[in-house]
Amino acid sequence: MDFELDRGIALDRVAEGEYSAELDGGWVVGGGVNGGYLLAVIGNAIRTELAELGQPDPVSVSAYYLSPSVPGPATVRVRQVRTGRTRSTVAASLVQQQGGREVERITALAVFGDLGEPGEAQREIPPPVLPPVEECLATAEAPPSFIEVAPLLQRFGTRLDPAYAGWALGSPSGSGTIQGWFKLADDRPLDPIALLLVVDALPPVTFDLGLPGWAPTLELTAHVRARPAPGWAIVRHATRNVSGGMFEEDCEVWDSAGRLVAQSRQLALLPRPPA
Amino acid sequence: MDFELDRGIALDRVAEGEYSAELDGGWVVGGGVNGGYLLAVIGNAIRTELAELGQPDPVSVSAYYLSPSVPGPATVRVRQVRTGRTRSTVAASLVQQQGGREVERITALAVFGDLGEPGEAQREIPPPVLPPVEECLATAEAPPSFIEVAPLLQRFGTRLDPAYAGWALGSPSGSGTIQGWFKLADDRPLDPIALLLVVDALPPVTFDLGLPGWAPTLELTAHVRARPAPGWAIVRHATRNVSGGMFEEDCEVWDSAGRLVAQSRQLALLPRPPA
Repeated sequence: MDFELDRGIALDRVAEGEYSAELDGGWVVGGGVNGGYLLAVIGNAIRTELAELGQPDPVSVSAYYLSPSVPGPATVRVRQVRTGRTRSTVAASLVQQQGGREVERITALAVFGDLGEPGEAQREIPPPVLPPVEECLATAEAPPSFIEVAPLLQRFGTRLDPAYAGWALGSPSGSGTIQGWFKLADDRPLDPIALLLVVDALPPVTFDLGLPGWAPTLELTAHVRARPAPGWAIVRHATRNVSGGMFEEDCEVWDSAGRLVAQSRQLALLPRPPA
Repeated sequence: MDFELDRGIALDRVAEGEYSAELDGGWVVGGGVNGGYLLAVIGNAIRTELAELGQPDPVSVSAYYLSPSVPGPATVRVRQVRTGRTRSTVAASLVQQQGGREVERITALAVFGDLGEPGEAQREIPPPVLPPVEECLATAEAPPSFIEVAPLLQRFGTRLDPAYAGWALGSPSGSGTIQGWFKLADDRPLDPIALLLVVDALPPVTFDLGLPGWAPTLELTAHVRARPAPGWAIVRHATRNVSGGMFEEDCEVWDSAGRLVAQSRQLALLPRPPA
């Protein structure tokens, strides 16, 4: 428990299938707690619930975001839907007390299993070629006014590819892509639970389309495809369909060995135009 | 109710949030009832449950497949998780009786809303350029031995692009892509509920990789992005990541106006090699 993420996702078992967590304000971005961090909290509860089965790894997690989470106490409930020999399906829910009543933040379904040691991939999207880490932009060094709104940037070691970071200076590339190197700021090694955080760790792709502001996620599904090797990961996400007030955001994560370790897609609402 | 799909997804309300359905053997493929047809059954139950809200359209549906469904009676249960003014989130479950007890086939989460009339898309994946319909291969005209295993082919008006249909003659292209024209055999117009069927209507992409056999879906998420215009749709699906005994299958559906109307991704298990 020497790392920020492990402290942030720590749980107490309070009842059968019920865990209490303390959502850490250090993972806040804009108006709420980061969705990827919340996925990791839920993932940790599921992993704990399934501990006796030898199925520690998220294979697929689908989260439906119901209301923005706030720092402070939260409860995660896990229900085993189907328990199998090699993988199990669960339903999970993250709730918080608000104004004297319980409000659901996220409802999720997941398959957990044992990813084992990664074998040879038969087919894989190759990672993008990025400039060296030291030539990429450290989001943790964003202006103080930005860090104040998004303290989670200090938890990430993200280094953005400058080719898709012009939005930070008011010149979005318009391609709808953001990519870069990723590690956690305190060098906590990435694992399958941490990958649930990584798939939602980049700034919204809408920034690169010249649309600043919060893009609320309706649904996010992450597939973890392999246990990551230690070292810098590469993360890319992009949107190809913007219509009807919504966009999809497809994210891929590769480990330091170039292996595709996670893939996600989310459907989000376009930010409202600035007033 | 003049169309096969409408008869196949018809429901009786038996209790609060509970619907009985009759899964039609005409939608069988290989060992089970087609997953897209089951999604349409579940979608129809959710639509019925939310009828008073004016939120008839699936926006996002995530289905976790637990066990293969068989033709015959089934029950769909729908629980409203969060009811909103413009969209609502529900949990749904499809169960069947088997050996005297209830067995869950699918557990799902969904967001429903009102897609309205399609406006201008800001950004969209263009549809592939296909040969004319009459130069594409009608899957309904597959050999009788094939139709016997996959009677649902007769319900579809699918016309496959010959460039990616070589697997039917033992020469898979190896690209991991299958695409073609799509309509329902009885010309039922496509609507958002039918699109839940369309995203899982093509033969598995693994056929195009030279891997015949059943590829069980673990998870499928469909996003319906617009109400489709009448006429022939175009469907394409492909895999880009095959590893660890699993592959993802990304599907896009365009309507006759070239509008991207649905997008899905599923995570499935690779077929076992032929014995």
